[in-house]
Amino acid sequence: MEIMRVVDELVATQRVSGLQKESLRVLENLKGKLSVATDAVGAPPGEWVITASGSAARYAMPDPSVITDLTIIGIIDHWEDDGGKTDG
Amino acid sequence: MEIMRVVDELVATQRVSGLQKESLRVLENLKGKLSVATDAVGAPPGEWVITASGSAARYAMPDPSVITDLTIIGIIDHWEDDGGKTDG
Amino acid sequence: MEIMRVVDELVATQRVSGLQKESLRVLENLKGKLSVATDAVGAPPGEWVITASGSAARYAMPDPSVITDLTIIGIIDHWEDDGGKTDG
Amino acid sequence: MEIMRVVDELVATQRVSGLQKESLRVLENLKGKLSVATDAVGAPPGEWVITASGSAARYAMPDPSVITDLTIIGIIDHWEDDGGKTDG
Amino acid sequence: MEIMRVVDELVATQRVSGLQKESLRVLENLKGKLSVATDAVGAPPGEWVITASGSAARYAMPDPSVITDLTIIGIIDHWEDDGGKTDG
Repeated sequence: MEIMRVVDELVATQRVSGLQKESLRVLENLKGKLSVATDAVGAPPGEWVITASGSAARYAMPDPSVITDLTIIGIIDHWEDDGGKTDG
Repeated sequence: MEIMRVVDELVATQRVSGLQKESLRVLENLKGKLSVATDAVGAPPGEWVITASGSAARYAMPDPSVITDLTIIGIIDHWEDDGGKTDG
Repeated sequence: MEIMRVVDELVATQRVSGLQKESLRVLENLKGKLSVATDAVGAPPGEWVITASGSAARYAMPDPSVITDLTIIGIIDHWEDDGGKTDG
Repeated sequence: MEIMRVVDELVATQRVSGLQKESLRVLENLKGKLSVATDAVGAPPGEWVITASGSAARYAMPDPSVITDLTIIGIIDHWEDDGGKTDG
Repeated sequence: MEIMRVVDELVATQRVSGLQKESLRVLENLKGKLSVATDAVGAPPGEWVITASGSAARYAMPDPSVITDLTIIGIIDHWEDDGGKTDG
């Protein structure tokens, strides 16, 4: 899994039917690379999250038939912006 | 999923039968890397799109038996060329 | 598989149900990149470990229905911090 | 899929039985990285080709039980060596 | 598939049961990146080999239930250390 930060929502009105009405999130990883993910936990912009990729991204969705290769599967309790981490 | 821009069509007359007659798109990601994708939404050159990779690329196609590992699954409503994004 | 070092635990209270109550580890690879993994061998922070990715990450878990794309599958007996390796 | 150029054949007499007698190609991508692929279209050295990776590489083979994770699935009609592309 | 050189064996006594008693190899790719692989052909240190990744790594093993995401599937007959290649 990867550590990423939620940057924003992404609007894509024209989409394949398999994406259903899932809202999409723009994420940034620790090196600044942007990706797009579906969200299985409801993570607002600014949160540090854990993402699963590949087939695990589909199994993580409430409906595993949703077309995705990257899903937010957890919100990190504590993460420092400089790449360090604190758990309390 | 990844954010990419449609650069052009790609003509490959000699191909495996599993590619069927699908038209192929050359895409460029945010770092300038080129890839080739099948297109499930009909995205013309110049558009910013969302792509799904791996087995999700096949499930996104109307016919999931098409041989592909990258498919355009949505067109982004608003995306600024400098990497920024606006939703309105 | 990849060679990584266990850096810390990662607390994510809000998570998809498919992650169950698995504890998560922050890992660092030989180039300093951080990842998050489930742990099938019980590796404490500081240990050099072997990780499996993709669907192999799930098959490595005692319960293969756990949502994961990276799992610690072994602890390396001897590994030198400078990237070299000794087996005795 | 990726755009690559066929560099040469690769001889590997000692191989797993699942590779059968498939001939192997050394390919170079647009950044100069070398890979090895099976060939489902018969592409000679020097040609620019399209490759499929992962499970799609196996589905592209006439015999999908061949062990491979990268297969040449098409020959690009026109591609300029400097990274540009022409279709006519 | 990728071209790699066998560097050494890797000892990991504590391991998941799914790894069975497979011996593990440390491999180095053409850019110097280290990986760990199972070995389906018996390649000694120093040899240039071909590796398959993902699910193909498991299908390449005599017992496809072995947990792996990278397997040595062939030994290259001739490869020059400077990245060039000769077949005779």
